[in-house]
Amino acid sequence: MDYQHIQADLADGIVTITLNRPDRLNAFTLRMKDELVHAFGEADRDNGVRAVIVTGAGRAFCAGMEMQPEDGGHVFGYDHAEGETPPLDTIRDSGGEVSLAIFNCRKPVIGALNGAAVGVGITMTLPMDFRLAAHGAKIGFVFSQRGLTPEACSSWFLPRLVPMHKALEWVYSGDIFLAEEGLEAGLFRSLHDKETVLDAARELALKLVAKSSPVSVALAKQMLWRNPVFEHPMRAHAVETSMIYRANEFWDGKDGFTAFLEKRDPVFDTDLNDLPRDFGFWPEPPLK
Amino acid sequence: MDYQHIQADLADGIVTITLNRPDRLNAFTLRMKDELVHAFGEADRDNGVRAVIVTGAGRAFCAGMEMQPEDGGHVFGYDHAEGETPPLDTIRDSGGEVSLAIFNCRKPVIGALNGAAVGVGITMTLPMDFRLAAHGAKIGFVFSQRGLTPEACSSWFLPRLVPMHKALEWVYSGDIFLAEEGLEAGLFRSLHDKETVLDAARELALKLVAKSSPVSVALAKQMLWRNPVFEHPMRAHAVETSMIYRANEFWDGKDGFTAFLEKRDPVFDTDLNDLPRDFGFWPEPPLK
Amino acid sequence: MDYQHIQADLADGIVTITLNRPDRLNAFTLRMKDELVHAFGEADRDNGVRAVIVTGAGRAFCAGMEMQPEDGGHVFGYDHAEGETPPLDTIRDSGGEVSLAIFNCRKPVIGALNGAAVGVGITMTLPMDFRLAAHGAKIGFVFSQRGLTPEACSSWFLPRLVPMHKALEWVYSGDIFLAEEGLEAGLFRSLHDKETVLDAARELALKLVAKSSPVSVALAKQMLWRNPVFEHPMRAHAVETSMIYRANEFWDGKDGFTAFLEKRDPVFDTDLNDLPRDFGFWPEPPLK
Repeated sequence: MDYQHIQADLADGIVTITLNRPDRLNAFTLRMKDELVHAFGEADRDNGVRAVIVTGAGRAFCAGMEMQPEDGGHVFGYDHAEGETPPLDTIRDSGGEVSLAIFNCRKPVIGALNGAAVGVGITMTLPMDFRLAAHGAKIGFVFSQRGLTPEACSSWFLPRLVPMHKALEWVYSGDIFLAEEGLEAGLFRSLHDKETVLDAARELALKLVAKSSPVSVALAKQMLWRNPVFEHPMRAHAVETSMIYRANEFWDGKDGFTAFLEKRDPVFDTDLNDLPRDFGFWPEPPLK
Repeated sequence: MDYQHIQADLADGIVTITLNRPDRLNAFTLRMKDELVHAFGEADRDNGVRAVIVTGAGRAFCAGMEMQPEDGGHVFGYDHAEGETPPLDTIRDSGGEVSLAIFNCRKPVIGALNGAAVGVGITMTLPMDFRLAAHGAKIGFVFSQRGLTPEACSSWFLPRLVPMHKALEWVYSGDIFLAEEGLEAGLFRSLHDKETVLDAARELALKLVAKSSPVSVALAKQMLWRNPVFEHPMRAHAVETSMIYRANEFWDGKDGFTAFLEKRDPVFDTDLNDLPRDFGFWPEPPLK
Repeated sequence: MDYQHIQADLADGIVTITLNRPDRLNAFTLRMKDELVHAFGEADRDNGVRAVIVTGAGRAFCAGMEMQPEDGGHVFGYDHAEGETPPLDTIRDSGGEVSLAIFNCRKPVIGALNGAAVGVGITMTLPMDFRLAAHGAKIGFVFSQRGLTPEACSSWFLPRLVPMHKALEWVYSGDIFLAEEGLEAGLFRSLHDKETVLDAARELALKLVAKSSPVSVALAKQMLWRNPVFEHPMRAHAVETSMIYRANEFWDGKDGFTAFLEKRDPVFDTDLNDLPRDFGFWPEPPLK
């Protein structure tokens, strides 16, 4: 795919995706959505990619939805509709498509928020495993001030990440707040100078993958995000029993165990693409 | 309804509900329960109400269940029963009825805890979006010391609001603790002087609604409380896709979007009572 | 049962379980698993036990799975297998069996981590209600560095206890970190000198049970851990309505209420073993 609104660069096993419309503060377009979904799919499939970083070109991270598309198309991607019930097979919240692509990418994903992140600019970062932000960056869940509602699956993610009263205060008011407030609430892992936030994200990415099995990381990502919604820990026990057994018998655990006893570095060479995707444990429900 | 145990005052779009039995430290009665359920129903229906504040008359917020009802009736509202299984159609935890009324009220709800909140006095505040408290207020989940258990849906809400070990320590021991400990755990949004906690709640309420669409706030409240228990973000994606579409096409989003482009204040005039209540997304399960 | 790898001592209504293989840093064996499951079952059944403390003999709490079993048996308890799908009736993650035994024990459980807790040494503590740790203790979710995955139901518990980004950072990297980092994240309730962590755990245990009904505590443990995963607070309302009614009519609440009015200490003498276990509210799903 020929990326026009993003850029993707692979180095040291880390693909850095840059939102790349700096003259529009990287405002989110339907094309950007398609490119992000594609890039996360590639990152998922490519064994050469160990982690993903998302950052923005220029002074902002993402100013939100592009309200004046260059091609004159519809902002939300659909013609004015007839009925009250949207046809979900053709109309979908575009931010949500990106969030699901991030959720389904079996590599760690780090947001390096180099500047302002507003509207979909912040909600699409919530499924990322880590958000690092620039000191003083302006953040806003501004939907209520436009008569709109949370999107990009943020109604599922945000209450898992910050105290409920912070989520509600930000979303009800729609006000802009500073990254420092987000750090205190747990929205951000850490704050950095604007010039160094990308370096900090790279340092974190390298630390995450330095000694770890790609298969272990892929499975851990799915297990930690998906299992807590099970109605009982017995279901996590079933997943874990299966994973530990298979990892130890057939996957990277085989040499991991032996290497540990032999006091040498392990060889981790299981191909992630040989593994099932949902293992029957995590079916993706239909969109309805 | 003629309120005798509470008082409800509407000003500036904010209804302030005052627990009003100051000579009994606002102890909770079955009549107070009926009045609170009624008042939250009215606040939900009345488009003139943008937010709800709950506070207490006199020096306490609520000292818990009234153990010596004036009318000589039964404290829990039922005669001594025959069988081990309570008839849920006639016997219900009264605090839970209030909590569900708060949960179903589509306006932001702020607790202004002017003093001690004990037993149902604290548990009924947990479904509120924000709890502000007076410095030094005494708080207690005292049920275990009476041989009873958590109620008012607190077993659902409390572990969402504070770290698990705090919830367990408070509930196991039944001990009284100070508001300062609650603030640190995240139970309270902020502490204030006893004399100013109600003013702080009003200031917060006005901030929440100053620029926001009533429909956006109503939907956001439901989305943020209900969607995180979905088993997969895809289901949040379905809700959000539907809401963004409808808001933009038919509700306040229509002018919100246009006003943003025209750099003027939006007109938000959608009638909340014209909206479905659960949209088919959030069915209320039967009590069983 | 004749305990060889643990020790269990009852005093003042508190049973202290000591992981007791100090020459192996209390590394976890299949025998230790069986003994722990037995000990938690006994603690659950014995009305003389009000709380459980788990600590380690010597300088570590638990260094993880014993990689070199004395009996030459298989580390994970099964022969090398044929198929990709493990037979769950014979093969189970042993740490998960301990975690479920802790989850099902209706007494408060306190971890007194006197030193390093690595691998299953830390994951088996997650279902405990409280974790107290020694200053400077080394902690590690090291699975990814062995090519393995989280176990002991930790994929269900860990994201409930600490911010998501901390859980992911620890689990992805597999790195060792200090107890101080765990305290800040909420993994630990409090830190203590190595010599006093067990005393602190005892002090906490005595505080929890000093004035509280054993039945209230048992029910509260189940309610606070299980009800938050319900899809709607109405279901918590059903549980609570039933519990408050029964406690008040038939169990410790009967005298608790009367004693309160009579300003005397209540008599709590309901036998926990006379109560249903899951009340029809909390069925344990099959392992599949």
